[in-house]
Amino acid sequence: MPDAPQISRSRLVQWEDPAIAARAGAALNGLEILQAMIDGKIPSPPISHLLNFHLSEAEVGRVVFTGETGEFQYNPMGMVHGGVAATMLDSAMACSILSTLPQGIFSTTVELHINMVRPLFAETGRLICSAEIIHVGKTVATAQGRLTDATGKLYAHGTITCMILRP
Amino acid sequence: MPDAPQISRSRLVQWEDPAIAARAGAALNGLEILQAMIDGKIPSPPISHLLNFHLSEAEVGRVVFTGETGEFQYNPMGMVHGGVAATMLDSAMACSILSTLPQGIFSTTVELHINMVRPLFAETGRLICSAEIIHVGKTVATAQGRLTDATGKLYAHGTITCMILRP
Amino acid sequence: MPDAPQISRSRLVQWEDPAIAARAGAALNGLEILQAMIDGKIPSPPISHLLNFHLSEAEVGRVVFTGETGEFQYNPMGMVHGGVAATMLDSAMACSILSTLPQGIFSTTVELHINMVRPLFAETGRLICSAEIIHVGKTVATAQGRLTDATGKLYAHGTITCMILRP
Amino acid sequence: MPDAPQISRSRLVQWEDPAIAARAGAALNGLEILQAMIDGKIPSPPISHLLNFHLSEAEVGRVVFTGETGEFQYNPMGMVHGGVAATMLDSAMACSILSTLPQGIFSTTVELHINMVRPLFAETGRLICSAEIIHVGKTVATAQGRLTDATGKLYAHGTITCMILRP
Repeated sequence: MPDAPQISRSRLVQWEDPAIAARAGAALNGLEILQAMIDGKIPSPPISHLLNFHLSEAEVGRVVFTGETGEFQYNPMGMVHGGVAATMLDSAMACSILSTLPQGIFSTTVELHINMVRPLFAETGRLICSAEIIHVGKTVATAQGRLTDATGKLYAHGTITCMILRP
Repeated sequence: MPDAPQISRSRLVQWEDPAIAARAGAALNGLEILQAMIDGKIPSPPISHLLNFHLSEAEVGRVVFTGETGEFQYNPMGMVHGGVAATMLDSAMACSILSTLPQGIFSTTVELHINMVRPLFAETGRLICSAEIIHVGKTVATAQGRLTDATGKLYAHGTITCMILRP
Repeated sequence: MPDAPQISRSRLVQWEDPAIAARAGAALNGLEILQAMIDGKIPSPPISHLLNFHLSEAEVGRVVFTGETGEFQYNPMGMVHGGVAATMLDSAMACSILSTLPQGIFSTTVELHINMVRPLFAETGRLICSAEIIHVGKTVATAQGRLTDATGKLYAHGTITCMILRP
Repeated sequence: MPDAPQISRSRLVQWEDPAIAARAGAALNGLEILQAMIDGKIPSPPISHLLNFHLSEAEVGRVVFTGETGEFQYNPMGMVHGGVAATMLDSAMACSILSTLPQGIFSTTVELHINMVRPLFAETGRLICSAEIIHVGKTVATAQGRLTDATGKLYAHGTITCMILRP
């Protein structure tokens, strides 16, 4: 009789000092920071390792993150916690705004709005989270994002409002 | 000369089979499920171990989660990722609704709205996330939540819209 | 010496019995209801006359409303009240969902989210509010909308969550 | 045989030059502006006359508007358009923030989020919309509001995000 597939119920998360990214980013504009992360020249932030998603594409006004679902993301209802979708969408939407900002200018999320249209399971597997700017003004910027699986099926979507911090 | 404090840049996350909680919960009403989690009779879900927050109080229509910030939650800006606040608030608000539901009735988040009013850092330490229902109808329920530090300082707040799934 | 332009500070709003539209709509599917309104076969609702906007295009999953700003819509800050943008966007987004529903099935807004990116003034003039569905499921539907002036400049955008009422 | 009650299907809306309020408000702090409106020393804005709601109470961080439903507010579904609730909540929440601001400092709504939990009808009659600040920072402020009938039954609730404009 074959054994049932065995799921490891532990996960070792490792990351690099986030101060490295902060220092390296100081001399670059927004799009250059994102490109340096994709190229592995700036380490991915701890949250990426923790939740298992990474930046994979960036152009001015638009980015894509990819990730992978797993049991380690589950809520008590036996599905991926909605916060995982919220976190990926927050990342992607905030980075789509960052991709438009000059060196030395950053933004901070003041408001995040998420719609969840289907549950995510460990079997869902690969996630694709794309985002694009809607409006980038002097002090406020907005963006929208979509979270799909590898076939393009929609699981969640959202919008974000960021303040642009100009020194 | 004393050494600088050394931060471990890895984290071992361990959890129990989430199917245990799902099976155990099937015979209980919402408040009983939450109370069993607080008492350790039902295991905390994987996401709690991953992000480091746990349910600590529950009554009909109101719950409290507590957590602890850490570098493992950081975004590339050198602060706790907003998704951590969003996930804690989502958990607390959804559980405040669950606390009012009879055995066999569950709810699912359709919409999550978060305002972030201050950044969280590793030094912020203890987090307290309380939530309470606003409206529980036949098919739709809403709730609101607040995320503060140990001194009561507000970091984020939110609302949620859930569908109530009645078989 | 020429007179200053004189603004009339009154507005006579007239509408038809809304029960006519409700009765006429009962035999039609969502898109047919919207088309009958555009063709003037079903009267526009009172709110359209009150706030000065009307449905002008409808296809499956997408509608356009047009309107006109005026001093009668002003808030105490000397600009068009944000609620006017919210109401147009709510109308357009809800109708984009209605356009996909069969005869006898309606939807109701449970949640409305609006971003305001620029102020509207009486001089802004013509408004164009387009909306399209994002997701239409069995019990929940979502849509997004944009409010621009005649040149395409963006003033507000939003999303909506509706419950679909199936008898 | 008695006649059926006759509903007038027209409404004459009259208002005063909104520039009067803007000029009068320039010398006052936020709470003084609101108090002057309640006392009739500053005219209510056009939108109040149009939609039939008025400011009735103001203290630091909290205001109340009252209104009255009517057929003139109806959508094509035969109920009060959700935009009426959104507009009253936007007004009340924005004014709760204004009530905390010193002379010469104003705020502008960047984001409005509304949950609608019950339909409003002409027969609902008197509406009470209260709002209070959640957080007022240097550049961003948030508030929450509730819309009830005269018996305290909840119809809608919301939150707002405003930018504070400091010259």
